[in-house]
Amino acid sequence: MKSSHDYALILAGGRGTRFWPRSRKAHSKQVLSFTGERTLIQQTVDRLKEVMPPERIFILTNPALRAEIIKQLPEVPKRQILAEPAQRNTAPAIGLAAHLIAQQDPEAVMGVFPADHVITKPKRFLKFVRAAFAGAAKGKMIVLGIQARWPETGYGYVEFAPGFVAGGTTPLQVASFREKPKLEDAQKYLESGLFCWNAGMFFWKTAVYQEALRQFMPKTATLLAALPKPSARNFISELERIFPLCENVSVDYGVMEKAQNISGLATDDIGWNDVGSWNAVYELLTNPKSANVSQGESLAIESRGNYVDAGKKLVALVGVEDLVIVDTPDALLIASRHQSQKVGDMVKLLEKLKRDELL
Amino acid sequence: MKSSHDYALILAGGRGTRFWPRSRKAHSKQVLSFTGERTLIQQTVDRLKEVMPPERIFILTNPALRAEIIKQLPEVPKRQILAEPAQRNTAPAIGLAAHLIAQQDPEAVMGVFPADHVITKPKRFLKFVRAAFAGAAKGKMIVLGIQARWPETGYGYVEFAPGFVAGGTTPLQVASFREKPKLEDAQKYLESGLFCWNAGMFFWKTAVYQEALRQFMPKTATLLAALPKPSARNFISELERIFPLCENVSVDYGVMEKAQNISGLATDDIGWNDVGSWNAVYELLTNPKSANVSQGESLAIESRGNYVDAGKKLVALVGVEDLVIVDTPDALLIASRHQSQKVGDMVKLLEKLKRDELL
Repeated sequence: MKSSHDYALILAGGRGTRFWPRSRKAHSKQVLSFTGERTLIQQTVDRLKEVMPPERIFILTNPALRAEIIKQLPEVPKRQILAEPAQRNTAPAIGLAAHLIAQQDPEAVMGVFPADHVITKPKRFLKFVRAAFAGAAKGKMIVLGIQARWPETGYGYVEFAPGFVAGGTTPLQVASFREKPKLEDAQKYLESGLFCWNAGMFFWKTAVYQEALRQFMPKTATLLAALPKPSARNFISELERIFPLCENVSVDYGVMEKAQNISGLATDDIGWNDVGSWNAVYELLTNPKSANVSQGESLAIESRGNYVDAGKKLVALVGVEDLVIVDTPDALLIASRHQSQKVGDMVKLLEKLKRDELL
Repeated sequence: MKSSHDYALILAGGRGTRFWPRSRKAHSKQVLSFTGERTLIQQTVDRLKEVMPPERIFILTNPALRAEIIKQLPEVPKRQILAEPAQRNTAPAIGLAAHLIAQQDPEAVMGVFPADHVITKPKRFLKFVRAAFAGAAKGKMIVLGIQARWPETGYGYVEFAPGFVAGGTTPLQVASFREKPKLEDAQKYLESGLFCWNAGMFFWKTAVYQEALRQFMPKTATLLAALPKPSARNFISELERIFPLCENVSVDYGVMEKAQNISGLATDDIGWNDVGSWNAVYELLTNPKSANVSQGESLAIESRGNYVDAGKKLVALVGVEDLVIVDTPDALLIASRHQSQKVGDMVKLLEKLKRDELL
């Protein structure tokens, strides 16, 4: 059953530099497709459309990406696809969306979703989303936990209280939020069985989040409260003036770690993947791990484990293994698949060299 | 001193498939540049122009390449750049050139040169070329030997008589010609100190070669003798009829191994390299062997030993070693540098798949 007070905020401001050269400032990870014909943000909206009409979906992105997102999502009202005037991390961004949604519907319950994750089992996922919306409608602040499958040091963790079992749809007490851990700690988390990955999916009434902001980030709360209505002529200019003054803090650090009585829903296997590198794309697309994966045509002689993305060009592989090969009209990337997380460093190098035309 | 009877034949019919995708049927190895701005065939002509005017240079190639060679060598008379109507290996090709040159100058001495080798010390090389022409003018059949530097199994060898010392300009008796040896034999050749590589460079009077053909390949000799003069209206049509009937045999096998009293000049270090693969190009261009070599712009993070040729495109390397990366508008090659001799197999695969547009 769809509640008419459920809203979604999709956070789509990231750059995803690890997908260079396919990703660029005006064409970054969330608007690319890796595992199918729909882009990551389109897949995100497709999933949410099962639980709410697109008229209740809001998207926050950056100025370089807004045009492309509007193009990809004709079903989402254009005025609900907003560019943040400055990068202020997630706490103010969610605050801004809460402000806008609350003006439209004071009873609103909002879910926060990243724009660039893959979920291969959407039906299972939506079971938890519905339960989270229902819990939030009762006034709870709810985080969706992802089943931890290895001691990842690149994610934050959500700790549940002893006795916890994953996969239920009744919100459980969260014991603590943990930031990205050291490997040793991540291993302990995994062994304890009490920890889930924090994938940045949150659910609450807009009024509850606004109250939390007033309590933990009063400066930001005051600034956002002073915004005129979105229909006002000076809305954009005021947003551009006010938003950069907000505190540059994540919702995890600024709100969740400080709030009491956070609840959580621990998902079981929903096929979640944050697609953090070209290697993650490769692993999503192949099993076993020795095949060559090619978007487009490739021919291989004594080669295996390669990921190839080169448009309409034929790619010939001779005696090579475990490479990522991504060709675009102005830049060609050849990376070791096992070092593909360092592609972001290449983007930093290009920034340093002021090669803006390639960014 | 330039003798007015010295002529050159440049054999430029090969395909050089190991340089795909840069090399194509109509743009193969000999018309490409690897180590400088001049192409391999231009460098070959540049060297020979030091000992004879371009009016005495003849070039035999295949129909697909002739237009490009004419374009690259405006100084060589167009009528001396001929396409062989069929591939009949080197013995008939040299016979055809001998026929044409002899009609122009019955006293002619011809040198035979491959079109696609690099010689980094041309002055030293020309010292031997002049000595070879001088010896050939006295009626000798002379082969130019290349100092063997490792037990290569991909070349033929020239064996000299005991007591031989490389680097002299007096023709020496050749004891035997050996075809591509097994590694064990190649190692013995190298240790004996009596063997040079056979790089396909020969010198003789046209009349002497024609006589040898009559003796060892009489069918081919008779066919070629029946050709009309090049100025005759039916020359091309007769060539197209007759040439495919010639025996498909190399000069080494058809003539040199059978002839008595072959002389040789053993060069010392002339910087010869037959540029047999992308790896050979890499090694010609770098020292030590760990640098990245790039034709065009590349950026590297934790990468070494790579050869990059990608036109105006930026190539970004992340964590990769010893690769050959060659990008063209319709095909991209990624090969292990140590397996770059297998690039020819990729071309065979494309032929099998009838991908003519990529050949």
